[in-house]
Amino acid sequence: MCELLGMSANVPTDICFSFQGLMQRGGGTGPHKDGWGIVFYEGKGVREFRDPTPGVDSKIAQLVQSYPIKSCYVISHIRQANVGEVCLENTHPFTREIWGQNWTFAHNGQLKDSQALSVGRDLPVGDTDSERSFCWLLNQLREHFTQAPSREALAEFLYPRFEFLRSLGVFNCLLSNGEWMVCYCSTKLQWITRRAPFGHAQLTDAQVEVNFAGKTTPSDVVAVIATQPLTSNEQWNEMKGGEMVLFEDGLDVWHSESTENTQN
Amino acid sequence: MCELLGMSANVPTDICFSFQGLMQRGGGTGPHKDGWGIVFYEGKGVREFRDPTPGVDSKIAQLVQSYPIKSCYVISHIRQANVGEVCLENTHPFTREIWGQNWTFAHNGQLKDSQALSVGRDLPVGDTDSERSFCWLLNQLREHFTQAPSREALAEFLYPRFEFLRSLGVFNCLLSNGEWMVCYCSTKLQWITRRAPFGHAQLTDAQVEVNFAGKTTPSDVVAVIATQPLTSNEQWNEMKGGEMVLFEDGLDVWHSESTENTQN
Repeated sequence: MCELLGMSANVPTDICFSFQGLMQRGGGTGPHKDGWGIVFYEGKGVREFRDPTPGVDSKIAQLVQSYPIKSCYVISHIRQANVGEVCLENTHPFTREIWGQNWTFAHNGQLKDSQALSVGRDLPVGDTDSERSFCWLLNQLREHFTQAPSREALAEFLYPRFEFLRSLGVFNCLLSNGEWMVCYCSTKLQWITRRAPFGHAQLTDAQVEVNFAGKTTPSDVVAVIATQPLTSNEQWNEMKGGEMVLFEDGLDVWHSESTENTQN
Repeated sequence: MCELLGMSANVPTDICFSFQGLMQRGGGTGPHKDGWGIVFYEGKGVREFRDPTPGVDSKIAQLVQSYPIKSCYVISHIRQANVGEVCLENTHPFTREIWGQNWTFAHNGQLKDSQALSVGRDLPVGDTDSERSFCWLLNQLREHFTQAPSREALAEFLYPRFEFLRSLGVFNCLLSNGEWMVCYCSTKLQWITRRAPFGHAQLTDAQVEVNFAGKTTPSDVVAVIATQPLTSNEQWNEMKGGEMVLFEDGLDVWHSESTENTQN
């Protein structure tokens, strides 16, 4: 399995603290040694860093941890390979253009018979079930919409398709276009929104503490989404199986109806 | 204008030496301060580094210069903006999936009326003439071929389209899928193939010398393509306007017929 990390914020924010925690699990405190990747949105553009080597040893991961890249939307992933060999083209997140936007996707889980998912114009480059499910989604979107739909129409469209993918196995995912982030939980996904008054946070996987009050302004709103909580002293919202949340500017603005939402 | 750098090699080779020379021109010895990018092929996957800040000051560029990433195909670009603002989505090279392959493109020049180039399924994310011409090419390719054509069929298809793009202004470009690299010269492009016996090379833009004999094996073949020669003590092949060369494994295996080739 793998681990996911996402961020949605209303001001460009660096994710160094959370990323540092995640990278510890990439071959250090966790077994996810089969590569890592991170995509930062900056306007409509993306910065992409990927490495099929363990995150804990990666020189590129060290740069990303020490060099604060500020972004409103970030998706990161550490991999413990099950389907597809360990190589760069199988390293999440995957980014593709649709409707003149960069869309980024990362998946945690495993799908049965993913080869049966029909892909048309968007073809996988690697051989993971994850990239294939992303291509299938893009093809479905292109068939259904000729241009980018509203946020609500998109969420309504994606939700049953995520439910279908979940029926094929385990499908936790993060998806973003740099204006919103969709998080779907099949088995494991948690999130937290940090806003004023900001406090201290302590990483679970390293002896690192941060005081967000010194790094933020009172109007900042930052949501962090992760497979497992990255901090030991904060209350994270645990998503249920079959729950989808769409974040915009750090806020959880859309929840799937079929799940009870008592977390917010 | 901008500057291009490409590499085609028969064994994974690091491009640190050439890239170091190019980065000096990114706001140091040259005026190309509006961003830089580099794409490395590793199997079917790509590593992409891009920064809209001057290459000479970029922490990410410093990492790429000091961390030897070995690859058989590399495309890099430094930008002096003319069309499109300075931002990440306008930073070359551009990478898109076609036929399950990652294709990477970088352009030096300026096109008139590039908005008239029709784009269908592959849409630009940014607003450069360069990305638009790449999308136009991809759409033309998809219309003409349903799957990846042979190298020769591809070269024959691309050449007249590059000639057409050149008729719109200045169009020097590099294009690769990680198995070949196509280089088209409108005004400025030069190349060199290094093979045994390897010697010393001295960068034009920095006090840096390398002895390739100590870094290679006798069977290595490495072609480097650049807007202007990067070394001061080697003989580069100057391409003519309207000349196209396709490299594979470091060798110039296809030349456009309409130009006299006396360089090899």
